[in-house]
Amino acid sequence: MGPDDLQTSRLSRAFRDFLPLPAKLEPHLKEALGRVLDNPGSLIRPEIVLQIGLDYGVLENTVLDLAIGLEYFHTASLLFDDLPAMDDAVERRGMPCVHVEFGDAGAILAALALVNRAYALVWRAVANTNHIDHARALTYLEQHLGVDGLLNGQSLDLHFASRKTDCKAAAIGKTVSLIRLTLVLPAMLGGASVLELQLLERISLFWGLSYQIVDDLKDVLQSSSESGKTPSRDLFLGRPNFALAVGIKGAVERLQRLITLGDRMLDRLTLLRPGLTCLRHLRSELGEEAVELTQFACEPVAGGVA
Amino acid sequence: MGPDDLQTSRLSRAFRDFLPLPAKLEPHLKEALGRVLDNPGSLIRPEIVLQIGLDYGVLENTVLDLAIGLEYFHTASLLFDDLPAMDDAVERRGMPCVHVEFGDAGAILAALALVNRAYALVWRAVANTNHIDHARALTYLEQHLGVDGLLNGQSLDLHFASRKTDCKAAAIGKTVSLIRLTLVLPAMLGGASVLELQLLERISLFWGLSYQIVDDLKDVLQSSSESGKTPSRDLFLGRPNFALAVGIKGAVERLQRLITLGDRMLDRLTLLRPGLTCLRHLRSELGEEAVELTQFACEPVAGGVA
Repeated sequence: MGPDDLQTSRLSRAFRDFLPLPAKLEPHLKEALGRVLDNPGSLIRPEIVLQIGLDYGVLENTVLDLAIGLEYFHTASLLFDDLPAMDDAVERRGMPCVHVEFGDAGAILAALALVNRAYALVWRAVANTNHIDHARALTYLEQHLGVDGLLNGQSLDLHFASRKTDCKAAAIGKTVSLIRLTLVLPAMLGGASVLELQLLERISLFWGLSYQIVDDLKDVLQSSSESGKTPSRDLFLGRPNFALAVGIKGAVERLQRLITLGDRMLDRLTLLRPGLTCLRHLRSELGEEAVELTQFACEPVAGGVA
Repeated sequence: MGPDDLQTSRLSRAFRDFLPLPAKLEPHLKEALGRVLDNPGSLIRPEIVLQIGLDYGVLENTVLDLAIGLEYFHTASLLFDDLPAMDDAVERRGMPCVHVEFGDAGAILAALALVNRAYALVWRAVANTNHIDHARALTYLEQHLGVDGLLNGQSLDLHFASRKTDCKAAAIGKTVSLIRLTLVLPAMLGGASVLELQLLERISLFWGLSYQIVDDLKDVLQSSSESGKTPSRDLFLGRPNFALAVGIKGAVERLQRLITLGDRMLDRLTLLRPGLTCLRHLRSELGEEAVELTQFACEPVAGGVA
């Protein structure tokens, strides 16, 4: 087991243990929540939170509270997203969605349990951090989760077809908001300078949009590669999709531009904080996905869709 | 306009204004939230929070944050409860339910916006209160909203038919939890003594169960009074109902016993805090409902159901 695996297994344990299920909890809800807590995703977000927070000198327990709290918010957002009333998904992380197995009510209550615990964990993290403006950190959280952030993005996403809003606004609300919390909050708790926070803000924006374009390209390319029989799910649901909006070539170009812009910010940031190598790692993963998709997009079948 | 009306119109304004809707908010979500914020309920809960908090010397702005925050939690819980996956209601406060007008996704996102703002408001109220243990107040909130409180109650309620759990556990989770937050938190913020908090805890328990029995009796009596044609909704949905569990006579007796127990606690409390007259007012309303239901229950048609 390498240090990375050790970290991941530690995060998995924390993900499971930070929301203790009381003995008297109603059994259906207990089972639904147990399923969620025993099956974390890649845990890449909490890993980044941990690395940034530690680099800024935040105490380990405190940054762990923040990391798991934000991951609970993220997980809850997936549970809500997957509901029949939203994206109507049936599978997530290789398993049936929570609502498929435990009903819509089970998924909603499980998501709300994660949300309730998440606020408590983030509060505790903020409260245990000295020398920072607590109200500012919590306002940042509120803005990115609420009507100025995630919830607005989700609603723009749902009503895209009827409103022809632009893809960017939806992606900023839906994807960028959570990435901002992941990159900016741990640095804020560590007393990062205004310039550092601004750079992290910009990186979140460029990478958030990049991830969205990667997702959108996959949605279009993967469907077209299957001899055109599977329609793009975004097209089918009337959801915003950069590749549908500006074509595959346009989306690939935009992706490359965003990655370049992100690189500039990352270079400036790592000059100030050489310890933030974890972000370079993330950047390479994004770059690899972009290269793969670019090659894929240039193949005849896929290219024909653009 | 009397002082009560003034108070209510002030609370209505705060209920609407404490969740500002940004100009860029997606129009469907904006409309759904606007509908919710423009149509508060009786606002009896925030009124009690205000009166208790002020009696304990909490600053007016602080206690108003707490009052509206808790009312947002309550309102969000109604939006979730009314969903087809939960109680499948169609009308609330004389209007179509939010999900009927704006879809399940609209109701869920509006409820989450209320929840997000509610945590921020309660946190601000706690943070602005000196000389109290902040962590304790926030833990109290977390416990009563989460898997130890409201969410457990809601799940017990939903799965009652398949589990034959007792009505009391469901009512404690679902009804008592929010009443406890209403009565105990403002006193806690005002530095109430351990004994006072214990008395408020007990009053919340007795009154919460009383309110639940009143609701349950109405559900059974109102349906039976209509020549038995409208079945009890709780019976139809397989929900816990004291009157169905122990009969109308048994439920009425239990209600009277609970009110008597509550009276004893209230007498002890008002000896310590004569300023808490607002609770006497609540108590009389509960008493009037009980008397009415008791008379109604003794009429031949209704009595026959027991």
